[in-house]
Amino acid sequence: MKKVKVAAPATVANVCCGFDILGFAVDAPCDEVVLTLTDTPGVTMKSITGDGGRLPLEAGKNTASVAVQSYLNAIQESTGVAIELIKKLPLGSGMGSSAASAAAALVAINALFDDRLSRSELIVHAMESERIACGSAHADNVAPSLLGGFVLVRGYAPLDVIKVPIKAKLFCTLAHPHLELKTEDSRKVLKPTISLKDAITQNGNTAGLMVGLMSEDYELIGRSLQDVIAEPIRSLFIPGFDQVRNLCKEAGALGCGISGSGPTMFALSKDQHTAEKVGQVLKAHFAKNNLNSDSHVSQINLDGAKIIG
Amino acid sequence: MKKVKVAAPATVANVCCGFDILGFAVDAPCDEVVLTLTDTPGVTMKSITGDGGRLPLEAGKNTASVAVQSYLNAIQESTGVAIELIKKLPLGSGMGSSAASAAAALVAINALFDDRLSRSELIVHAMESERIACGSAHADNVAPSLLGGFVLVRGYAPLDVIKVPIKAKLFCTLAHPHLELKTEDSRKVLKPTISLKDAITQNGNTAGLMVGLMSEDYELIGRSLQDVIAEPIRSLFIPGFDQVRNLCKEAGALGCGISGSGPTMFALSKDQHTAEKVGQVLKAHFAKNNLNSDSHVSQINLDGAKIIG
Repeated sequence: MKKVKVAAPATVANVCCGFDILGFAVDAPCDEVVLTLTDTPGVTMKSITGDGGRLPLEAGKNTASVAVQSYLNAIQESTGVAIELIKKLPLGSGMGSSAASAAAALVAINALFDDRLSRSELIVHAMESERIACGSAHADNVAPSLLGGFVLVRGYAPLDVIKVPIKAKLFCTLAHPHLELKTEDSRKVLKPTISLKDAITQNGNTAGLMVGLMSEDYELIGRSLQDVIAEPIRSLFIPGFDQVRNLCKEAGALGCGISGSGPTMFALSKDQHTAEKVGQVLKAHFAKNNLNSDSHVSQINLDGAKIIG
Repeated sequence: MKKVKVAAPATVANVCCGFDILGFAVDAPCDEVVLTLTDTPGVTMKSITGDGGRLPLEAGKNTASVAVQSYLNAIQESTGVAIELIKKLPLGSGMGSSAASAAAALVAINALFDDRLSRSELIVHAMESERIACGSAHADNVAPSLLGGFVLVRGYAPLDVIKVPIKAKLFCTLAHPHLELKTEDSRKVLKPTISLKDAITQNGNTAGLMVGLMSEDYELIGRSLQDVIAEPIRSLFIPGFDQVRNLCKEAGALGCGISGSGPTMFALSKDQHTAEKVGQVLKAHFAKNNLNSDSHVSQINLDGAKIIG
């Protein structure tokens, strides 16, 4: 096989109390990559569609090609690779756009090398590409895009990534208002110190969220989906955040928050009908604030990036 | 029935990364309470043994009697109650001594009133008694002593106590060096602010510990049993803490830390043999530092306080 097509899902990182440690994948939207082995040495970006011409075709600057190059270095192969990238995730939205491109490219190249590495082993190569996308090699988008489900990044020294064996069946609403935030800017507003009290509250919520997800206790999931550290500051970027969060809960969402570093908001619900109602609430709210938005409703993606052709 | 005898277990609060939110109960040691309904109105402490004469017989100052009075107020009963308290837990040791006395007394009085309240409903009355014992109405000792197992105190406003459905089978070593620490003093040394980085590390470990306990992943439990917030400061009260923690791990413990606010140290192991070896390591270490100590090895207590006569 010389050519393969892979779709890798959008992801929600910074899941409320799980700031910087917890992410999950959703069924849609997905970025797609067609990867072809060629006789010309080197990794090249052959084409990018769906990005409005905003992403660089330079191989050293695109997360898909950087990830593939890191992979090839690791397995000590030097074949030629041509990458066609079909962007379906909006850029700078907080839905793990750069991570999805890297995850798709990695699953593709790995398939062409007979799955020489495991999904978990691909994570470090995707992290390398995150470094060029947002300045730090974080794993909380790439890991769920590769593994699916809820993924805990317990720590980085050494890297410790755990796919959480959840029982809860959840539907996710993503609503992306058309304003762009850079992860770097969104990170800059965070304070380097926090109160011990807030740290304990966050920790209690994180423990509660894990127990809720693993024991299918939806009430507990709802009570635990609170972020007292990043959200109070980052939500200032999103017009009427507190108000719309309350409206989402009134509409039946278990909880909601900022996806990644925003501006996309996510909500988790127990069923599709509620998740769709919540999507309408979010869209209406953004419209009232003179913002166009698009929304997606899907189940949690349990398997991560997959070969589609 | 006019008389009942109840045993309530020692507990480990502040379980490493679960500082202020997580506690568990052990099979031994237990405080015992003999509670008798009398015709003389009022709650009285009839006798206390095993405390070396250090605990007050004044009803308003003993956690057992305070808890019972709070219970009677709640159910609007005004019977006479005489309490005999048999202390088996060392005072000021960090093993939840005051909590065990209160838990035993509450399960006893509740039994004599046909279990009018659930175990969970008893927690607030035990918390009232903690206020007189250590200045704050915390739940992380009383809740596991009443409910058994690992208990998460997600938050206090409102009180949210969750018995964690763990799968892991664990043995606990408790080693109590004969030096006394007051919870208040131990709390005073903590700083009111911490770094965001440490908060994230703690949060990752807490999530990892929950996943490990619930999915029976002992390696993950071991990696997650770390406290970067309280332990680095509080461990200064315990001679050679870092050294003996490493020795415990070398002896096979999954992890270890300070029980409650110390000075007792606890370790968790996968089997009894290892837990006993770890107890010897701890005792030898304390002896080398000219401290007498006693140690206990037991399984996690899954049911909490129980009627024994």
